[in-house]
Amino acid sequence: MSDSNAAAIQTRTVQALRDLLGENSVREQADPALPDVIVKPRSTQEVSQILQICSANGQALVPLGGKTGLANGHFQTGSEIGLSLERMSAIEEVDAQNRTMTVQAGCILQVASEAAERHELLLPLDLGARGSATIGGNVATNAGGNMVIRYGMTREMVLGLEVVLADGTVVSNLNKLLKNNTGYDLRQWFIGAEGTLGVITRVVLRLRPRPQSQNTALLAVDHFNEVAALLRFMDRQSGGALSAFEVMWPEFYEFVTRNGSLHRPPLPHGSAYYVLVETQGSDPVADAQKFEEMLAQAMEQGLLADAVLSHSQAERNALWEIRDDVLSFYALGPSIPFDVSITIDRMEDFVRDVRAGMAPFEDKICVVFGHLGDSNLHVHLGNTQAENFDYAALCELLYSAVERYGGSVSAEHGIGLGKREQLHRSRSAAELQLMMQLKKMLDPQNILNPNKIFAAEKIAAL
Amino acid sequence: MSDSNAAAIQTRTVQALRDLLGENSVREQADPALPDVIVKPRSTQEVSQILQICSANGQALVPLGGKTGLANGHFQTGSEIGLSLERMSAIEEVDAQNRTMTVQAGCILQVASEAAERHELLLPLDLGARGSATIGGNVATNAGGNMVIRYGMTREMVLGLEVVLADGTVVSNLNKLLKNNTGYDLRQWFIGAEGTLGVITRVVLRLRPRPQSQNTALLAVDHFNEVAALLRFMDRQSGGALSAFEVMWPEFYEFVTRNGSLHRPPLPHGSAYYVLVETQGSDPVADAQKFEEMLAQAMEQGLLADAVLSHSQAERNALWEIRDDVLSFYALGPSIPFDVSITIDRMEDFVRDVRAGMAPFEDKICVVFGHLGDSNLHVHLGNTQAENFDYAALCELLYSAVERYGGSVSAEHGIGLGKREQLHRSRSAAELQLMMQLKKMLDPQNILNPNKIFAAEKIAAL
Repeated sequence: MSDSNAAAIQTRTVQALRDLLGENSVREQADPALPDVIVKPRSTQEVSQILQICSANGQALVPLGGKTGLANGHFQTGSEIGLSLERMSAIEEVDAQNRTMTVQAGCILQVASEAAERHELLLPLDLGARGSATIGGNVATNAGGNMVIRYGMTREMVLGLEVVLADGTVVSNLNKLLKNNTGYDLRQWFIGAEGTLGVITRVVLRLRPRPQSQNTALLAVDHFNEVAALLRFMDRQSGGALSAFEVMWPEFYEFVTRNGSLHRPPLPHGSAYYVLVETQGSDPVADAQKFEEMLAQAMEQGLLADAVLSHSQAERNALWEIRDDVLSFYALGPSIPFDVSITIDRMEDFVRDVRAGMAPFEDKICVVFGHLGDSNLHVHLGNTQAENFDYAALCELLYSAVERYGGSVSAEHGIGLGKREQLHRSRSAAELQLMMQLKKMLDPQNILNPNKIFAAEKIAAL
Repeated sequence: MSDSNAAAIQTRTVQALRDLLGENSVREQADPALPDVIVKPRSTQEVSQILQICSANGQALVPLGGKTGLANGHFQTGSEIGLSLERMSAIEEVDAQNRTMTVQAGCILQVASEAAERHELLLPLDLGARGSATIGGNVATNAGGNMVIRYGMTREMVLGLEVVLADGTVVSNLNKLLKNNTGYDLRQWFIGAEGTLGVITRVVLRLRPRPQSQNTALLAVDHFNEVAALLRFMDRQSGGALSAFEVMWPEFYEFVTRNGSLHRPPLPHGSAYYVLVETQGSDPVADAQKFEEMLAQAMEQGLLADAVLSHSQAERNALWEIRDDVLSFYALGPSIPFDVSITIDRMEDFVRDVRAGMAPFEDKICVVFGHLGDSNLHVHLGNTQAENFDYAALCELLYSAVERYGGSVSAEHGIGLGKREQLHRSRSAAELQLMMQLKKMLDPQNILNPNKIFAAEKIAAL
């Protein structure tokens, strides 16, 4: 399509949307990464009307949640209109009896979490962007976060979904049942599809009992095989209570706790691995005792070299702040925050290979940490001298290693635009073909978040 | 298609399969419910070749696992050939480091469970048919069972899948990673699709630490709101360890523990509800103490009227045998074992309604029990006098109540043939349309388990 043709379609569509919803619901904005025009529906019915108009005009859209995604799934790639769910942010119900919560897609994660807490329930999804990310965006990207080891990813929390298809059809199944084997599980199509198959408008989430206790420790471990054995030991000994097993390689820990940094080091520098572990339970006294015994046993078995336990919420926060202080690395120079999965048995070799690949760089940034219990590593690669930063070379180094080790190019961030050209490293041609067929079936004009996951030309060539 | 035409196609296809695989792999069998001819491949490659031949001839197939399904998904509906996975039963790997297991689809559930146990790991799927059901069938039906409250359904245990499509294409992703957000999650299409979208040939399962303790009790409860409150109480107090919450209505309990039955009643008759609860943990001594304290607290709070705890594996088995003795009801007369879901807040009213509907029957069988923690009820309805048994009337009574209460016509058994005409009660027209579109896309000739979930005429009319 020519640019002038696309511009004419956009002008016509925007006018139709203004006629339908009023000026106030269709606004221009200046951020060049995002669509120039954003439409802000107030209801599922309005979303449906918008999609009918866009569909009739062949106008593409980018669904927008909190815009916190790290794969650029919310970026503009041509003349898309933005479809923001920000006005559909209500918590429609917290059902304490059935332990579910029904929210509109634009509801902020933290708002939903706090509403659950007020009913002594837990929405077991937590991630750094909690204050801006929306539930709709979390579902569309199948968000992971800090408690996956115990509760699974967002996919496992979604009981019901309401979705609007490309042609405006509303497909609503606000299911609250844990078991529902009635035909194909349509929810799964839309979870993690990054807005390319439909616009999520409402979600029913499964809630859990709110934990009555939390026990947190930072551990120092000498060898990687001990880290892996410690994970298995703690998972078994905690009897289902292990809720975090976060590993920091020494560059991470030593940098964020160096002299002059925001954090004091709870354990001395010089260890090979630092592990933040946490259990959630139901009995503050007994659980604390069990946690200490478990760590003492692990030390006896030679699985850890040193440990510091938190004895207050302030101490717990201080430990988590070290693990969460990822922004510090951006101050070092330009870097890429890779998010990949590698099975635990190959992780040590993978990291060694990546380090070896980075060795020639004089001014390298190479920081490794991750949700090890979920086989998820985050790897920051970059250069302290901006003029040496070579995005393509760093991607090739890292993703070719992921491919060699049979890993996944995206653990929890999704594909979006940023990882689109890497998708073939983790998915076969037969798989990609099936995915694109579904996309074509559900969105024949490719108006839903085009160019995300798959380039528009590839869909058009099917 | 005329019968003679179908017969000619079958004759031609069977000959081609014999030429390919040998006489010994293509056998006739006499059970009229099942396909007359069964082909028994030894490898994924043979499954692919079989599907290429069937596809070229327009010959339909029924994939066969352990043939233990309760929705008749394995039945013949015309001139299908059976495709049995029984020779593909190997456990290819137990990976203790990554805590996964890779099995061929025909592997028997119990064999897989025992292999996991030998590595001190748990395959958290358990159901009555464990000795015959296959992993492929469990995945194809998204089996539930006795530990769903803690570990989820089969869907949540499947990390990787290998599937052969209708045209023989092998789509293989034997993923072992817990987090893998790389495009659409194709696994989910085939899990629970009952063999209508592809033939599952290999599965990677997530394993868990094997529990070190089990604590089991049978409880008597006076009112339904106490049953619901008890579930919430135990789930919260056990801190993630609750692994079963099975409820028996008094007709169930009193019948299977009556004088002359196989079981002695551990608690006296006369209570309104009997609840079998179990926790799994990591510390035999501490967990037993915690379990007793938890029940004592529940009694203090008036959530239960009486309790008996098991103190040995033999006592535990005796409690579970009461709950598992479902076959007793078949001796009473013809009955239908309904499997439905209802949210807990509406369950009491639902059961009251069903009972009221059954009141006019002089010789009724009406037995209710279920996995209450999963919102799953099993309801046996029938008649002690076979001549009064009216299948259609009982289905109408039960399923119309499910529809009125917003429930699911299948919790864990699937749709197959048996519930096909009830599917519309739990799924909207828009949902059914989408499902049938996927079916048509993946299997344009409708040769994969035709007439299951959807009647062939409906697919043809799309």
